[in-house]
Amino acid sequence: MKYVYAFSEGNKDLKDLLGGKGANLAEMTNMGLPVPPGFVITTEACRTYLRTGVEPPELGPEIDKHLAALEAATGRRLGQADDPLLVAVRSGGASSMPGMMETVLDVGLTDSSVLGLARVTGDDRFAWDSYRRLIHMFATTVLGIDGAHFDTVFDERKHLRGTASDVGLDTRDLQAVVAAFQDVVREHTGHDFPQDPHEQLTMAVRAVFASWNSPRAATYRHREHIPADLGTAVSVVAMVFGNLGAGSGSGVAFTRDPATGEKGVYGDYLENAQGEDVVAGIRNTLPLTELEHLDPRSYHRLREIMATLEHHYRDLCDVEFTIERGTLWMLQTRVGKRTAAAAFVIACQLLDEGLIDADEALRRVTGDQLAQLMFPRFDSAAAAKVLTVGMNASPGAATGAVVFDSPTAVARASAGERVILVRNETTPDDLDGMIAAQGVLTSRGGRTSHAAVVARGMGTTCVCGAEELDIDVAGRRLTGPGGVVVAEGELISIDGGTGEVFLGEVPVVRSPVVDYFEGALDPGSPQAGELVRSVHRLMTHADARRRLEVRANADTAENAGRARRFGAKGIGLARTEHMFLGDRREHVERLVLADTDAGRDAALAVLLPLQRNDFVELFSAMDGLPVTIRLLDPPLHEFLPDLTTLAVRVALAQERGTPVERDVALLGAVRRLHEENPMLGLRGVRLGIAVPGLFGMQVRAIAQAAATATRAGIDVRPEIMIPLVGAAAELHDVAAEITAVLDEEAAATGIRLDAPLGTMIELPRAALTAGSIAETARFFSFGTNDLTQTTWGFSRDDVEGSFFSRYLDHGIFAASPFETLDVEGVGRLIALAATEGRAVRPDLQLGVCGEHGGDPDSVHFFHRAGLDYVSCSPFRVPVARLEAGRAALSGPVGP
Amino acid sequence: MKYVYAFSEGNKDLKDLLGGKGANLAEMTNMGLPVPPGFVITTEACRTYLRTGVEPPELGPEIDKHLAALEAATGRRLGQADDPLLVAVRSGGASSMPGMMETVLDVGLTDSSVLGLARVTGDDRFAWDSYRRLIHMFATTVLGIDGAHFDTVFDERKHLRGTASDVGLDTRDLQAVVAAFQDVVREHTGHDFPQDPHEQLTMAVRAVFASWNSPRAATYRHREHIPADLGTAVSVVAMVFGNLGAGSGSGVAFTRDPATGEKGVYGDYLENAQGEDVVAGIRNTLPLTELEHLDPRSYHRLREIMATLEHHYRDLCDVEFTIERGTLWMLQTRVGKRTAAAAFVIACQLLDEGLIDADEALRRVTGDQLAQLMFPRFDSAAAAKVLTVGMNASPGAATGAVVFDSPTAVARASAGERVILVRNETTPDDLDGMIAAQGVLTSRGGRTSHAAVVARGMGTTCVCGAEELDIDVAGRRLTGPGGVVVAEGELISIDGGTGEVFLGEVPVVRSPVVDYFEGALDPGSPQAGELVRSVHRLMTHADARRRLEVRANADTAENAGRARRFGAKGIGLARTEHMFLGDRREHVERLVLADTDAGRDAALAVLLPLQRNDFVELFSAMDGLPVTIRLLDPPLHEFLPDLTTLAVRVALAQERGTPVERDVALLGAVRRLHEENPMLGLRGVRLGIAVPGLFGMQVRAIAQAAATATRAGIDVRPEIMIPLVGAAAELHDVAAEITAVLDEEAAATGIRLDAPLGTMIELPRAALTAGSIAETARFFSFGTNDLTQTTWGFSRDDVEGSFFSRYLDHGIFAASPFETLDVEGVGRLIALAATEGRAVRPDLQLGVCGEHGGDPDSVHFFHRAGLDYVSCSPFRVPVARLEAGRAALSGPVGP
Repeated sequence: MKYVYAFSEGNKDLKDLLGGKGANLAEMTNMGLPVPPGFVITTEACRTYLRTGVEPPELGPEIDKHLAALEAATGRRLGQADDPLLVAVRSGGASSMPGMMETVLDVGLTDSSVLGLARVTGDDRFAWDSYRRLIHMFATTVLGIDGAHFDTVFDERKHLRGTASDVGLDTRDLQAVVAAFQDVVREHTGHDFPQDPHEQLTMAVRAVFASWNSPRAATYRHREHIPADLGTAVSVVAMVFGNLGAGSGSGVAFTRDPATGEKGVYGDYLENAQGEDVVAGIRNTLPLTELEHLDPRSYHRLREIMATLEHHYRDLCDVEFTIERGTLWMLQTRVGKRTAAAAFVIACQLLDEGLIDADEALRRVTGDQLAQLMFPRFDSAAAAKVLTVGMNASPGAATGAVVFDSPTAVARASAGERVILVRNETTPDDLDGMIAAQGVLTSRGGRTSHAAVVARGMGTTCVCGAEELDIDVAGRRLTGPGGVVVAEGELISIDGGTGEVFLGEVPVVRSPVVDYFEGALDPGSPQAGELVRSVHRLMTHADARRRLEVRANADTAENAGRARRFGAKGIGLARTEHMFLGDRREHVERLVLADTDAGRDAALAVLLPLQRNDFVELFSAMDGLPVTIRLLDPPLHEFLPDLTTLAVRVALAQERGTPVERDVALLGAVRRLHEENPMLGLRGVRLGIAVPGLFGMQVRAIAQAAATATRAGIDVRPEIMIPLVGAAAELHDVAAEITAVLDEEAAATGIRLDAPLGTMIELPRAALTAGSIAETARFFSFGTNDLTQTTWGFSRDDVEGSFFSRYLDHGIFAASPFETLDVEGVGRLIALAATEGRAVRPDLQLGVCGEHGGDPDSVHFFHRAGLDYVSCSPFRVPVARLEAGRAALSGPVGP
Repeated sequence: MKYVYAFSEGNKDLKDLLGGKGANLAEMTNMGLPVPPGFVITTEACRTYLRTGVEPPELGPEIDKHLAALEAATGRRLGQADDPLLVAVRSGGASSMPGMMETVLDVGLTDSSVLGLARVTGDDRFAWDSYRRLIHMFATTVLGIDGAHFDTVFDERKHLRGTASDVGLDTRDLQAVVAAFQDVVREHTGHDFPQDPHEQLTMAVRAVFASWNSPRAATYRHREHIPADLGTAVSVVAMVFGNLGAGSGSGVAFTRDPATGEKGVYGDYLENAQGEDVVAGIRNTLPLTELEHLDPRSYHRLREIMATLEHHYRDLCDVEFTIERGTLWMLQTRVGKRTAAAAFVIACQLLDEGLIDADEALRRVTGDQLAQLMFPRFDSAAAAKVLTVGMNASPGAATGAVVFDSPTAVARASAGERVILVRNETTPDDLDGMIAAQGVLTSRGGRTSHAAVVARGMGTTCVCGAEELDIDVAGRRLTGPGGVVVAEGELISIDGGTGEVFLGEVPVVRSPVVDYFEGALDPGSPQAGELVRSVHRLMTHADARRRLEVRANADTAENAGRARRFGAKGIGLARTEHMFLGDRREHVERLVLADTDAGRDAALAVLLPLQRNDFVELFSAMDGLPVTIRLLDPPLHEFLPDLTTLAVRVALAQERGTPVERDVALLGAVRRLHEENPMLGLRGVRLGIAVPGLFGMQVRAIAQAAATATRAGIDVRPEIMIPLVGAAAELHDVAAEITAVLDEEAAATGIRLDAPLGTMIELPRAALTAGSIAETARFFSFGTNDLTQTTWGFSRDDVEGSFFSRYLDHGIFAASPFETLDVEGVGRLIALAATEGRAVRPDLQLGVCGEHGGDPDSVHFFHRAGLDYVSCSPFRVPVARLEAGRAALSGPVGP
C-alpha cells in the first residue's frame, strides 16, 4: 500500500485515491504545465487514520521521503531559517465539498524562518503578514481555538492605528499582532505555537484528515448523498505567493462562459493577493481581460494553458492561478460547472471542434437540464431587483403577493389573487396554502425540507433556505438584506431554477426551447439562437440512438396534440375518469343512486354518447398512432361530494328545518360507498366486475368511436387497458365481457375493432403473477405510481407532506420514490414481471405510464429493464426522448 | 386408449378414470364381494364426448364387448323378451357431487321384455312398476320432458283409485299409467318411447355424459371448486331388485357411527324397496338392527362384509346394499363422511385396532375439525325444535331476537338485546347490522355469499341459504316449513357449524375440548369422554411431530395466560396500541395537541408508567417464554374521534351558539392528522421516526418493566419488533435510538436488557429487500394481514363486504386471501424474504403473526417455507399445533 504520491506519479483518473484536486494537479504536472511542486497523501491514509485514530506506520516515512524530494526540487528546506520552503496543506475528496473541510497555508513559518522569508523576498511586511495568517489558520483549524479571539486582537490593532483595512497595518503592527496571536495560543493550549516546521506539517495533515468528520462536512455529505466513509486526500504543495506586490496576484478563470457557453475569456483577477482573498471578496476583482494590460506575458501564457486544458479534458475547465512576481502558477483545475443552456451549447461547440463525438455530446447534457430550459423564465432583460438568493428547490418562475400563513393564502387565492406563501419552514398544516399559492418561499431548510419535497411533488415553484430573510409573521412582513422590508400583500417574484428572489413583479418569458418543440420556432431559422440549434441537434441524435419509444399520458385532444408535437409516438395512458367529471358528475350520481338494474343501465346509457365523442376526438388527434385507453379506475365515491362537508351541510339544514331531499339521499349513498382507504378499495377492475355494464359501456363507446372515426378516414389504434389487476382471473373475466361487446358492435357497425387488451401492472401481486396474466394480456403498462404506493405501503397524498422530508434528511431515501423509481424494491418487481411476462408471451408489449416515465434516472432503468416505451406528461416527452437516447449509450440492455 | 373397464379390471385408485363409485365397485368386485356384474365407461370418454359432441368411435364397440360379457355372466340378454337383462346406468365423477348428475335404472325394459320380467319374477305388478319407473326416469333425464307431466298422470290415477300411495295401485293401474306415460312421450317428442334396448342404453349413457354440464352441476362444482373439465364416468350395472316382495329390500349402512364414531351397527333398511326409495323417504325406514330378525343370514353377511371393507379401506365406510329375495348385493361403498368428533374418535380407534399408525391417525383429522369442536355448542340434550337447516357458513352457536333489517339490529343491540339478523341476502348496507348481531341467517346464497364471507371475516355465526324460509320484511315475520311463523323480536337459535335453525333459545354448552385445553379436564380422568381422550392423543402426537413452534397473539396478561394453557410457547405479537385505548386516549389526545417539544414529552411521560405496568404483567404471565412486543403501529388519529362525527357536532354546537373549546381544538387536530388512506399513512416505523421520543418511551417502558420483573425473579424474554419497515435504513435509524435508550436504562437500573430487535415483514418492499433488512434485524415476523393487503392492493375493511363474495363466486379466489394465504402472490414474497434473509443471517428467526398463523392450509405453507413459528389468536393455538404436526408428515421442508 502506497500512501503518498508525488504529483508526477498521479493522474486525473485517480480521484478516488488522490481527491479531485490532487488528481488534477498531478495531471497538469504531467502535462508540463507550471504547477508548484508537491505531493498527495491518499484518502486511504485518511480512512485508516479515521478508523484507527492513528496514521498508518508507513505514512510518516513516506511523507519524509516526498518532502525531501520536494525540498530537492525547490532547493529549499521546510521552515529553513535563511530561505524557507513553505507549503500549503489542502483537503480534497473525490467529490467536491466546497468550503466544508480545512486547509492550512504557509506551513513552515516560525519565529526564525519568518526572518528568512523576509530576507529572501525582500518584503518584511509580506513575511510577517504570512506568519500572522499561518498562526490564525493553524490555531483555529489545527488547535481548535475560536477564531473570534484572533479577530479581536487584529481589530484592536487596526483600531489603534485608526485604519479599517489590514493594508493600513505596517510590519511593526503585524509583528505585534503575531506576538499577541502567540499569546492567545499559549493561553488556550498551554503550549507555545509550534516552532518545529515538521511538527506543524504533521499536525496540519491530521487536522485535514479530521475535518472530514466535522459536523458541517457530515451534514453536507448527508444532504448530497456522498458516502460517509470515503475520506479526504491531502495535498502538500510548495507555497507560491500572489501577494508579493504589484507584479503578483491571483485569479480564477473559465475556458468558456459557464452561463451561456460562449467562447471568450471569463474570470476575475486580483493584484497583490492570494487566492483566498479573491474568494473572500475583500477587494474588488478585475475582469480577467485586464490582465492582458497588467502582465501580457502571463496573460497569454494563461490563455495558452487554458486552451491546452480544454483540449486535454475535452470540456469546459475552470482554473485557479497565482502570479508570483511575473511567474504564472496553476493551483487547480477541474471540469467546470455550467448552466443548463451552456451545457447544450458547449456540447455542440466541442462536437464542432472535433473534440468529442456526437454520443459524447449527448452524454454531456441531461434531461434535468432540458427540463430547466423548458420552464418559463423571468425575462433576463428586465431590470429586476434581487432581494436575496436561496436554494433552487422546485423549478419555475412565480410572481404573487406575499402571504405569511396558509389560511391567508387560501383566502386570497380563492379571491383570484396570485400569492407566494412565505414561511420560515412549512409543516403539514401549510398544505392547503401551498396548493393555493403560485410559489413557496422559506427561510430555512434545504432541498429535502418539507416545503421543497411537497412543492416538487405538486410541481409548484419553490425557493427554500433563503437564510438572509427575517420573517415576522406576527408583523406580517419580511426583512431582507440591507433592511429592505416587504409587507404582506406586496409583490415578489421567485425563480425556483436559480433560487433568486426578486422585489415586485418580474415579466415572465416563454422558453424558446418550448417554442421549438411546439414547432413555432424553426431551429434552422435565424430567429433560433445557438441554444435552440444545440437542443435540436442533440435531440435529433438522441432520437436516432434511443431504443425506448416515448408516448404521452393525455386525456384530451388538446393534450394529445401537444404531446404529438413534442414527439410522442402515441398515448400510453388516456384516463377515462376525467370523462366523468364536470357536468357529467350528475350522471355518476344517478348511477350510484340507482337501486335497480334498469336505473343503473339508464345512467350508463346517458354516459355512453359522451364518452364516445371524447374518444372520437382523441382518435382524430392521434391519427395513425396507438391510444391506450384505461377503463375507469377510481372508486365511484370519488365523483360524489365529500362525506364530512355533506354531513355538516345536512345536519345544519336539518337543524334549521330546511333539509334538502337530494342531499339526504346523496349522504346515504356517500356513507354507503365511503371507504376507509379508497386507494385500497372498490376501484379499477374490481369496479368493472362489481358494477355490471360499466366496462361494457366504456368498451362500447370505444368501438363506436372507432367505427365513426374509421369511416371518417382516420387510422384508429386503440388499446384497451384494465387497471388494478391483481390476478389473471380478473382479466380473464373482464376479457370475456369485452369480447362480447366488441362482437356485438362489429355486428352492428360492420367494423370489427381488433384492439389489443392489456393491463396495468400496478400491484405487487400483478408483478408476482405476471406470467399467468400474460396469458391473457397482450401488453403490460407499469403503473409506477400505484406500484410504488403498494410496494412501499404508503399513499403519496398522505405521506409526502408528513414524513418524506424527514426520510430524505435521514438519508432513508436518496430521492423521493415518487420522483425517481426505487430500483431496489419497485424496480425489482418490474424486472421480474418483464422477464416472466415475456417468457409466456415473447411479443408482450411493455411500457410504463407512471410519472417516472419522464424522470431521467428512471428512464435509464426502464431502458435497462428492456421495456418498449415510457409514457409521461406531454411536457416531459422531450426529457424522456433525450434520456432514452442517453440511456442507449450506456451499453446493452439487461438487468 | 381404453374407454370401458369391466369391474374386474379396475380398482379403488382409478377414481379419476372410473369415478368414485365405479372405482369402488371394481375394488369390491376384486375383493370377492357380491357386486352385481357390470362395467364402467371412463371419464375420458365423457370428456371426448363433451368436447367434440360425439362419442369416441371406439366407445360403441367396447360397450358392445363388455355388454356381451355381462350378458354371458348373467345368462341373460339386454331387454330379451323372455328373461331380460336390465341395467342401471349411473353417473359418478372423481369427486362426490351428490344428486347433481343423472342416473337411469331399469334400462332394457320394453313393451315385450316387461312381460318376460313379469314371468321370470312371477310378479306382474313389480314388472309394470319397473317399466313405469323407467319411462318416467328416461323421459325426464334423457328426453328432457318436464317431470310434472308424469306426476299429473300418476296423481290422477291415484285419485281415481282413491289412494294416496303408489302401493294402492295394482297391475292394471300401472299398465294404464305406462300407456299414459308413453302418450306423454309421444306428444312431447313426436316419437314412441324407444323399444330397442340398445338404443335405450346408448341414449342413457349420453344423457349421463351431458348431465356433467347441467346448470346445477356446474353451479355446484363452481361453489366446491371442482374443476369444470373432469367429466363423469358411467357405470352400467346389472339391475338387482329390492322391491321383489317381503324377502327383498334396500338399505344404507355405516361401519361406525358417523356422528360420534362409536362402534356398532348404524344404518337404515326398507323392505320391498329400491335404494331410491330409501333416500326419498317415501316410507319410514327400519333401523338396520331389525334386519337381524327379518333376514339373519343377509344381516350377518352384511356385517362380515362391512368388517372386511373397514379393514380393507382402513377407515369408516358407508355402503348401499340391496337384498333380492334373500341374496345380498353391494351397490356402493366409499370412505364415509363423519362429524368432527367422530373423526378424532375413529382415528384413535383405528390406531388401537392396529389398522393405521399414529401418523396416519393424525392425517385423518384436520384443524378445521378441531376448531369446530372448540366452539360452544347447543346443548344436544335440550329438546330443541329445528325450524329448518341451511348451509353452515360461519361456525358458532348464537341465540337472539329475530330482526329483519340493519337499523333495527343496531338499535336493539345498542339497547343491550341479542339479535339475529335475518335477510334474504345481505349487501354492504347490512354491515352495521351484521356487526351488531350475534348471528346472521339468510334464505339465499351459499358459502361464498356476501353474508357468509363477511360473517366469517368477523367471526360471527352464520347460517345461509336456508331456502325453506319465506322472509317477509315488510310484514316483519318469517315463515318456515309447515307454516311455522316467527315474528320480529321472537327468539331463534342458529348453529353455524351444522346449519341448523332452532325455534326459541337453546342452551349453549361449553366445549369439553376447550375445558381440556384450559386444563380444567384431565384427559386421563373418567370425566373425560372418548372424544377428549382422542383429541389429547392426537395433539400429543402432533406436538411430537411438528417442527413449527406455535406462539400466540396476545396483548393482555389474561390472554397471554390462556394462550400458554393452550400450548403457546411464547407471544408472537403483543400489540402495544391496545395500551393506548380506554382512559388512556386522553393522553394520546394531549400528545397530538402538543404544539411544543416539552408538551409532547410531557404527554409521553404520562404514558410511560402505564405501559411499564402492562409489560410487567405480560412478562409475569409469560415467565420463561419469549414475548414479541410490537412498537406502536396505527396512525395517531386512530385514537381521536371520528372526523365527520366531530365536524357535525362542532357545526351544530356553533349553530346553537354553544361551541366547546376542546372540541374545536380537537377538530383542528383531527383535520390536520386526517389521512385519505390511513392504512398507507403515517404509522408504524414512520411514526416512530416522525414523532421523536415515542418509540423511545415504549422501549424505556419495556426496559424498566424487564428490570422490575427480573428483580421479582421472573425470566423475561422480550423481543422488540418494529412494524411497517420498508427499507433497511428505517430499521437502522430506529435501532440507534433503541440502543441508546437501553444503554441509559442499563446504567440507571443496573440490569442490561438484551432484547433481540426485529421487524415485521408486512410490506412487499420489505420482502423484496429482506437481505439488507436482515443485516439489522435478528428476526422477521411476517405480518400476513398487511402483506396481503399491500400485495393485492386492497384493505380488508373496505373490500370484504364490497366485492369478495363476487370474486369467490366468479372463482377469482378459491378462498378469501384473508382466510387462507395466497401462496402464489403473498407466499412468493414470504418464501423470497425467508431465503434472502437467511442468506445474510443464517440464524435469522422467522415467524408469522398474521391471522393466517392459525389457518390450516396456511400453516402447511409456513412449514414448507421453513419458518420457525406461527403466532395466532390464543383460541387458534391448538389448531395451529395440530396442523403444524400434520404439515410435518407431508415431507421435507422446501419451497
